[in-house]
Amino acid sequence: MPASPIRKLVPFAEQATRKGIHIHYLNIGQPDIKTPPAILQAIKDTQIDVLAYSHSAGNYHYREKLTHYYKRLGIEISADEIIVTTGGSEAILFAMMTCLDPGDEVLIPEPCYANYLGFAAEAGIQVKPVPSSIETGFALPDREAFEQAIGPRTRAMLICNPNNPTGHVYSIDELRVVEDICREHQLFLFSDEAYREFCYEGSHYSALNLSSIREQVILLDTISKRYSACGARIGALISHHQEVIASALKYAQARLSPPTLEQIGAAAALDLPPDYFDATRKTYLQRRNTLVQLLNEMPGVFCPMPQGAFYAMARLPVKNADDFCQWMLESFSYEGETVMMAPGAGFYATPGLGLQEVRIAYVLEESSLIRAMKCLKLALEQYPDRCSR
Amino acid sequence: MPASPIRKLVPFAEQATRKGIHIHYLNIGQPDIKTPPAILQAIKDTQIDVLAYSHSAGNYHYREKLTHYYKRLGIEISADEIIVTTGGSEAILFAMMTCLDPGDEVLIPEPCYANYLGFAAEAGIQVKPVPSSIETGFALPDREAFEQAIGPRTRAMLICNPNNPTGHVYSIDELRVVEDICREHQLFLFSDEAYREFCYEGSHYSALNLSSIREQVILLDTISKRYSACGARIGALISHHQEVIASALKYAQARLSPPTLEQIGAAAALDLPPDYFDATRKTYLQRRNTLVQLLNEMPGVFCPMPQGAFYAMARLPVKNADDFCQWMLESFSYEGETVMMAPGAGFYATPGLGLQEVRIAYVLEESSLIRAMKCLKLALEQYPDRCSR
Repeated sequence: MPASPIRKLVPFAEQATRKGIHIHYLNIGQPDIKTPPAILQAIKDTQIDVLAYSHSAGNYHYREKLTHYYKRLGIEISADEIIVTTGGSEAILFAMMTCLDPGDEVLIPEPCYANYLGFAAEAGIQVKPVPSSIETGFALPDREAFEQAIGPRTRAMLICNPNNPTGHVYSIDELRVVEDICREHQLFLFSDEAYREFCYEGSHYSALNLSSIREQVILLDTISKRYSACGARIGALISHHQEVIASALKYAQARLSPPTLEQIGAAAALDLPPDYFDATRKTYLQRRNTLVQLLNEMPGVFCPMPQGAFYAMARLPVKNADDFCQWMLESFSYEGETVMMAPGAGFYATPGLGLQEVRIAYVLEESSLIRAMKCLKLALEQYPDRCSR
Repeated sequence: MPASPIRKLVPFAEQATRKGIHIHYLNIGQPDIKTPPAILQAIKDTQIDVLAYSHSAGNYHYREKLTHYYKRLGIEISADEIIVTTGGSEAILFAMMTCLDPGDEVLIPEPCYANYLGFAAEAGIQVKPVPSSIETGFALPDREAFEQAIGPRTRAMLICNPNNPTGHVYSIDELRVVEDICREHQLFLFSDEAYREFCYEGSHYSALNLSSIREQVILLDTISKRYSACGARIGALISHHQEVIASALKYAQARLSPPTLEQIGAAAALDLPPDYFDATRKTYLQRRNTLVQLLNEMPGVFCPMPQGAFYAMARLPVKNADDFCQWMLESFSYEGETVMMAPGAGFYATPGLGLQEVRIAYVLEESSLIRAMKCLKLALEQYPDRCSR
């Protein structure tokens, strides 16, 4: 089981905090945006005597309301095609365990959400990474690269759209390539759309609407980022494939049920007005623009413009970003402040890739982001192992 | 992945309900006891703006308070030896994945909690069942039976104490046998003590206090039954073995965190007075006595006296309890009522065992239990496939 690259620097951060240094946490996708009060209020208003298990697939009332949320987005599904999961995390694990046998392979464009690698290890399946490049803004790798990676045990492809960690939003043309590959090679398509509300240019196209592979698509979702409710642990696995749902339900039944109260909160969130996301999206957009501009102004730094989510992958003029991120916590501060970032290598399955990259989550208000970038700029100037590209 | 024996009759129950039949649900361990209002109140009183991830191992505050709970029970552990899990379910899965490799074996006395078999399948490990017998009240199988089941890939034993589904509470002598086996064969001991508060004769002895295998014991726990808070999804994995905790933490980090609000509720429950459980224990004791007496009064029925938890395993004069339980939902009613029970075979890993047995959870008030037993008695009289033993 690989260690989380996002959390493995935590001991160094704790040490810095004990020294009195203020850390700008840009390492983890924990939004600072307020959770809609309606979610918390619905939980507080709940009148129950017994905090009982819910249905293993989630409360029917919540699933029914979810269908209306998806319908507004142009996605037609029924409540029976939804399994409410304990966070998006569990949806990923259920999808892997349901659709693949141990030893089977899943194609994943890299860099990718690091925990995909952990869940694949748990499910006993092999990740076949297909590298995307910072030079192309982490666009979908060429079709040929996928074809070359496909072997007799390849059963699925996993994409994250908008992408964590790159912020790339797959265009409809890119999704057509994905559709063609999955159709021709009979692959399941796991589509993690946790960040769909956060697209800053153009609109989001859901994999569930790729009609020629309708039954092969498994949508992985979560309320964590959408409603800044990471601690609620409410996600969903959605598929038109009845056998997939029936099989995933067995995993759901083994763990009994997702949290009861948070399903009530999540259902309440679905009554928020459709323009609820406008303000949050505007906030992230502004932060993104500021962050990417400041990064690209630093000598030797390159950060392609992300189109969605709230992450940016930047290449730094250092030999090893792992060492650099640790050094920033251990040995650097500017006016009592430093920055925590997620080293890029942990988002790649291929050893040796991403060594110069970091993932930055723009989950702090703009003034803090500006301070953080000031720290980063000075740190890069002072860092002993700086290198030019 | 095996289907849950507890839930697979649900469609037949739904059908009966649609026909207007009232079902006494004795099939699932969902207590009817009120959740302590302090748990729900603490959640309602929580003032937060952002429902954020907690620490992957659980809030430190909650873990710290848990150490005092265990200390009162005579179990000495530190907060760093606890990983808060999403229900006891996740603790079971984490223990298996942490301590065993795919293909390794775990010894489990059967009948056992059916989902152990599901989690073992998820972890890719083999269950080596060691049968206990209804004739001995499901006492620990003989040492020889365990020895015979141990092979070169056997790495662990899993016990549930008090036992689900049998209600058996392991005596200190039985636990010494378990200790000896685990010590001599270098096995991890997974001890599921979800029902420790519900012992009706004598006291409970925790496996964590088996001093000669101190580092080999993994305690699996949950607040679900203790506080009638099944829907909270808060459990714990506890071990003195530092490497086990470090490895389990990686699994915990991959899924980010257990639910945030419920940890606040669970922490509040720890302030309940120590005599809080007395009333609940008394309620269950009274129900147990009534239930077991009524069962044993039915011709051909045998139910040994359970000493703990809130389950009884009974042998019925039927060829196949699966069919009988389904028949009770599909084709039987008495004054508009019927009963749902969990067929026994699903609690055995050995095919062909437990076919005449059912698990009955006494999670209804006594008057309902009496009505339910009236139904069962009449159903057994009318059932076409009745057989004598």
